[in-house]
Amino acid sequence: MKITPILFLFTLLSSTTSYASVHDFCVGDIKAPETPTGYHCMPLANITSDDFVFHGFVAGNTNNSFNAALTSAFVTDFPALNDLGISAARLDIAKGGSIPMHTHPGATELLIMVHGEITAGFLTTTAVYSKTLKPGDLMVFPQGMLHFQVNSGKGKATAFLTFSSANPGAQLLDLLLFSNNLPSELVAQTTFLDLAQVKKLKARFGGRG
Amino acid sequence: MKITPILFLFTLLSSTTSYASVHDFCVGDIKAPETPTGYHCMPLANITSDDFVFHGFVAGNTNNSFNAALTSAFVTDFPALNDLGISAARLDIAKGGSIPMHTHPGATELLIMVHGEITAGFLTTTAVYSKTLKPGDLMVFPQGMLHFQVNSGKGKATAFLTFSSANPGAQLLDLLLFSNNLPSELVAQTTFLDLAQVKKLKARFGGRG
Amino acid sequence: MKITPILFLFTLLSSTTSYASVHDFCVGDIKAPETPTGYHCMPLANITSDDFVFHGFVAGNTNNSFNAALTSAFVTDFPALNDLGISAARLDIAKGGSIPMHTHPGATELLIMVHGEITAGFLTTTAVYSKTLKPGDLMVFPQGMLHFQVNSGKGKATAFLTFSSANPGAQLLDLLLFSNNLPSELVAQTTFLDLAQVKKLKARFGGRG
Amino acid sequence: MKITPILFLFTLLSSTTSYASVHDFCVGDIKAPETPTGYHCMPLANITSDDFVFHGFVAGNTNNSFNAALTSAFVTDFPALNDLGISAARLDIAKGGSIPMHTHPGATELLIMVHGEITAGFLTTTAVYSKTLKPGDLMVFPQGMLHFQVNSGKGKATAFLTFSSANPGAQLLDLLLFSNNLPSELVAQTTFLDLAQVKKLKARFGGRG
Amino acid sequence: MKITPILFLFTLLSSTTSYASVHDFCVGDIKAPETPTGYHCMPLANITSDDFVFHGFVAGNTNNSFNAALTSAFVTDFPALNDLGISAARLDIAKGGSIPMHTHPGATELLIMVHGEITAGFLTTTAVYSKTLKPGDLMVFPQGMLHFQVNSGKGKATAFLTFSSANPGAQLLDLLLFSNNLPSELVAQTTFLDLAQVKKLKARFGGRG
Amino acid sequence: MKITPILFLFTLLSSTTSYASVHDFCVGDIKAPETPTGYHCMPLANITSDDFVFHGFVAGNTNNSFNAALTSAFVTDFPALNDLGISAARLDIAKGGSIPMHTHPGATELLIMVHGEITAGFLTTTAVYSKTLKPGDLMVFPQGMLHFQVNSGKGKATAFLTFSSANPGAQLLDLLLFSNNLPSELVAQTTFLDLAQVKKLKARFGGRG
Repeated sequence: MKITPILFLFTLLSSTTSYASVHDFCVGDIKAPETPTGYHCMPLANITSDDFVFHGFVAGNTNNSFNAALTSAFVTDFPALNDLGISAARLDIAKGGSIPMHTHPGATELLIMVHGEITAGFLTTTAVYSKTLKPGDLMVFPQGMLHFQVNSGKGKATAFLTFSSANPGAQLLDLLLFSNNLPSELVAQTTFLDLAQVKKLKARFGGRG
Repeated sequence: MKITPILFLFTLLSSTTSYASVHDFCVGDIKAPETPTGYHCMPLANITSDDFVFHGFVAGNTNNSFNAALTSAFVTDFPALNDLGISAARLDIAKGGSIPMHTHPGATELLIMVHGEITAGFLTTTAVYSKTLKPGDLMVFPQGMLHFQVNSGKGKATAFLTFSSANPGAQLLDLLLFSNNLPSELVAQTTFLDLAQVKKLKARFGGRG
Repeated sequence: MKITPILFLFTLLSSTTSYASVHDFCVGDIKAPETPTGYHCMPLANITSDDFVFHGFVAGNTNNSFNAALTSAFVTDFPALNDLGISAARLDIAKGGSIPMHTHPGATELLIMVHGEITAGFLTTTAVYSKTLKPGDLMVFPQGMLHFQVNSGKGKATAFLTFSSANPGAQLLDLLLFSNNLPSELVAQTTFLDLAQVKKLKARFGGRG
Repeated sequence: MKITPILFLFTLLSSTTSYASVHDFCVGDIKAPETPTGYHCMPLANITSDDFVFHGFVAGNTNNSFNAALTSAFVTDFPALNDLGISAARLDIAKGGSIPMHTHPGATELLIMVHGEITAGFLTTTAVYSKTLKPGDLMVFPQGMLHFQVNSGKGKATAFLTFSSANPGAQLLDLLLFSNNLPSELVAQTTFLDLAQVKKLKARFGGRG
Repeated sequence: MKITPILFLFTLLSSTTSYASVHDFCVGDIKAPETPTGYHCMPLANITSDDFVFHGFVAGNTNNSFNAALTSAFVTDFPALNDLGISAARLDIAKGGSIPMHTHPGATELLIMVHGEITAGFLTTTAVYSKTLKPGDLMVFPQGMLHFQVNSGKGKATAFLTFSSANPGAQLLDLLLFSNNLPSELVAQTTFLDLAQVKKLKARFGGRG
Repeated sequence: MKITPILFLFTLLSSTTSYASVHDFCVGDIKAPETPTGYHCMPLANITSDDFVFHGFVAGNTNNSFNAALTSAFVTDFPALNDLGISAARLDIAKGGSIPMHTHPGATELLIMVHGEITAGFLTTTAVYSKTLKPGDLMVFPQGMLHFQVNSGKGKATAFLTFSSANPGAQLLDLLLFSNNLPSELVAQTTFLDLAQVKKLKARFGGRG
C-alpha cells in the first residue's frame, strides 16, 4: 500500500477531528470565568486518561447533627463532567439520620439504593410521592421538586445519587429560610410559621434578624 | 404580468409555508394528551386573530386570608402561548397582604411594578436578595429560586409578573409541606420545625397525619 | 446540639451550593467577550440585591417622527437577565403614532395593554392576525413574525412588552431596506417596489445608492 | 461457542436498542397531529431504506414572473428529516430572475453555488452583507435575517440551499405585506410606503383592502 | 381565619399547579405513539408513588458467551424517567468477561464502580483514554464515544452505569457490522477487515451475505 | 420630516439592535478558548461581507489509498458558522474508492448526489439502511449512526455533504480501533476480531501494542 497517500488522507480526515475538544468532550477549566452553559474547555493537549476518572467516591463522616454525609462528584470536583449533563454523589446516613427537605433547581435526581433502608419522597402542591426503599430499588425525584431522605432502617444506609446536570446545586430549605439576615417577622409572614419558631431556627442555623 | 406562472410559483413557495402550524406558531390543543414539550398544535385552519389575544388581565378578588390575588395568563388560560416560552400573571395585594414563599421550578419571573409598594426577595443558601419596589422598577427572580412578595406600602399594590415559560407552575411552600398527609413527625424531622408547629400548620392548610 | 459537626456538614453541603453563580443565576459581565449563549458570569462575590432590580421603566420621549418611544430593559440594560430567557420594554405611543413593521428574530413578544388603545397584528404568508387592544388585554406575537403596533385611540397609549429572550433585538423593516447602501435597483428588484419609492425612502432613512 | 447464551445476552442488549425509533431516528408521521418539536415517530417496523432517500432534487420550472424555481426537500417532502435539524432545497434562477426578500424565522441557510453567478446578501439594521458568488463558493445567511438572491450572471444559475431545520418555512416579504386584507392605509402607515405603492402591490400579489 | 376565602385563593393558585403533569413531571405513556422528545404524559390522576420507584436493579445472569449481564432501568423499563434526562443500568461481569466495543449515540455514561476490578476506556481518532477501576472510582464516557469495559480482576465485577438520557440506547459494534445482511465484500471494503474475518464474524453474530 | 427626532428614535431603537453580535450572528473567534457551545463572538465592528462567504469548496486530491477526498467547510474553516448549527463538505471518490465506516457523534449528515453513483448506508443493531444513489437523490444519515459511502459507478463520483452542526467531527472506525496503542489483545477481546487481524490493521493504521 502507498503509505504517503494514506497519511495524506489522514491529514484531511483529522482536520475534521481536531476539534475534539469541542465535540468529543470539553473538560472544564474551572479556574477561568464561567459561561451560562458551563466552563471553558481545557486544551485537548492537556487532557489525559486521569481526567476522566474520579477517585474517592467513598463514605463521608456522618458524625454530625444530621448523622449524614454527602460525597459529591460534581463538575467542580470532576471537571471532565463539564457540559456532559450528568454527575453523582454518595449519600451515607447513620441510624436515625436524614437529609432534610431540599431542591436541586437545575437537575433531576435518580437515587440507587445500595445498603440499608431509606424512606424518601418529594412534594407537589397536590400530592406527596413517598416510598421506603431497599437495595435493588431506584427512586427518581423530578427536577426542582422539594424532597427528603430519611434512614428508616436499623443500621447505616447508603445510596448513590445521580443527577441530570454536571452541577445540580442543592437548596437546603432550612439554610434558605434560617441562615440569613432576612427579618424574622418577614420570614414568619411569608411562611405562616410562628415568630418564635423562626427565631429558634435562626439561632440554630446561624441566621440573624 | 403572467398571473398563472406567478400563482404556480406561489404554490411552490407556499409549500414551504404551509407548515406554519409548526414553524410560525403552535396554538395548543389543551384537550389532547400532553407531550414533554407542550400541547399538540391546533390545525392551522382553526386559528383566528382571537386566539392570539387574552382578555381579563384584571385585578382578582383579594378578599381572602392572604389579602392577595393572582390572575394568570398561562398556556391553559391562553393556548396561543404553547411552546412560545413566555406567560404572564397579574398580582394584586391589599394592604398588609403577601404572596408567601414559593418557587417556579421551570421559569424565571420578571416582576413589573405598576402601583403601590412591594418588598420582594429571593433566597439562596449563601445570601438573600431583597428590595423594596416602586412603580418604574423591575425585579427578576431567577428560575427555581424560593421567593416572596409583600405589600409594604400604605395601600393596594399591583404588579405584572411575566415568566420565561408558557406554564411556570407555582410551588407554594406551605402547600408543599402542610396540605398533604405526610406524617407530621416526618415533616418535623426533615424541616427541623417543632412537631406542634407542623400540626398547627397542617390544621390550617388542610393536611392530615 | 453539636455545633462543630453541623458546621462540618454545612461545609460539605455548601460545597454543592458554592457554584451558585452557574446554577442559581449568571449575572452577565457585559464588558467581556460574548459567548453564543450570552455573557460570562460575574463573580458571585460581586453580586448584590441591586443587581436584580432595574429602575427607570418609565415613559420615553415620544416627540419624534414616529410619535413613539421604547424604553428597554434588555440584558445590556439589566445584566441580571443574562441567560434567564426573559426581558421587557415599555412602549409609549402618542396620538397618531405607531411602531412600524419589525421582527424579533430570536424572541416571542407578549404585549400587556396598560393605557389607551392600540391596534396590533402580525403577518404570515397565509394570513394576517390583527386586533384592537384595550387595557386588560394581552396579545402574543410569535417568534420571528413581522408585526406592528398603531395607536388607534383618541389619546396616548402605553403597553408593557415582554420577550422570551434576554436580548430580543429588533429588526425594523425600513431600517433593513432603506438605511444602508444596497443599490436602489437591487432593492427594487427584490421587493417589487418602484425604484422611485425606494429612492424616496432611502433619502428618508439615511440610505445611499 | 454457546449459541443459546449468546442469544440470551443479545435479548438483554437489544432491550436497550429496541427504542431505536426514538434514539436512532424518528421518521415523521406527517398525517398525525404535530407536536411543538415535530411529528410523531412512525413505527420502526414500517421503516425501510427508501424512507431515508429523497428523489427528484432537480431543477424546477422557472417559467414564471420571478424566473426562478425552488425544489424543496423539507420534512413534509422527506419525513425522515423529522427532528434531525436539517433540510435542503434546490434553487434555479433563469437569466434576470431572483428570489425576492424573505426570511426563514427558524433556520440558518447555507448556500452552495453550483452553476452560474448569483449576487446574494442579508440585511441587518446596522449593515448589509452582500457578495457575488460563483461555483466553489458558499454563503451563510444567519437565522431570521432578511435576505435575497439575484441571478447576476449571463445565463442560468443553480444553487443548493441547506437549512439548520427540518422545516425552515419561508416568509416572502411581498406575500407578508401585500397578499392579505390588511387595510392599505395601515400597511402604508407601518411601512412608510406611499399608499399608491401599497395598492399597486396589493393588486399584484392578490391582497385586498 | 376565613376558610372559604383561603380555599378560594387556593383554587386560584392551584390553577397554576394543575399542569403538574407537564411541569413537575411527565410519566411516559409508553403504549402511545412517541414524539421526538419522548412519550406523551400519563394523566396526573393515574400517577402514584409507585410510578417513581423501580424494583429489580439486581445482578443479571452472566452465564453467556460474554460472561456479562446488563440490567437496564431506561424509560421503557421505568416510564417515570420520561423527559427527565437520566437513566441507569447495572453491569455484572464474571471473571474473564467483558462488554465489547459500543456507543450510546444520545447519552454520556457515568460508571460507578461497586465491586471487583474493571478496565475501561473510550477511543477518539487522536487518543485512547483507558484506566483500571476499583470500588470508589467513577469514570465518564462522553456522549457518542466508542467504549468498552473488561473485567480485569480475579473475581466478579459490578458497576452501576448512569446515563444523561432517559433512553441511551446502545450500539454494539459487532451487531452493527456482523448481524445484518450487508454483503461481506462491502463490509470488508469499508472496514479494511479481511473478507474471511468478516465472514467468520457474520457466522457468529447471525449475519448473512 | 424632523430629522433630529427621528435620529433620536433610531438611537433608542438601535440600542435594541447593537447586540447584533449576539442575536443576529456570532462569528467565531477560533483563536480564543472554546466554550461548551462554541467559540466567542468576534466584535461586530470587525465583521465584513467576506466573513459570510467560503471559497474553495472544490474537489480535493483523491490520489491516496482510499481514492477519496473530503473538502470541509466546518466552523474552524469558516468561522461564520459558529453557533449556526450547520456546515458542509465536498466528497469526491475516484473509481473504486470509498469513505470507510465512520460516525459523526454530534451531527446528522444530509448527502446531496452531484455526479456519478454512490452506494451508501448506515447501520443499526436491528437493520441496515442502504441504497445506491444517483444525481437528483438525497440521503440522510441520522446523528451518531455508523455509515459508509462507496463509489459503485464506472467513473468519478461527487456528493455535497451537509451537517446539522457547525462542527460535526468524524470518527473513522479504523482510526478509533487501530491507530492507537491500546493492547492488541484488548482490542481483540472487545471486538471479537482475531488477534492476527488486529495486529495486521494496527500495522496499517499506525497503531502500536
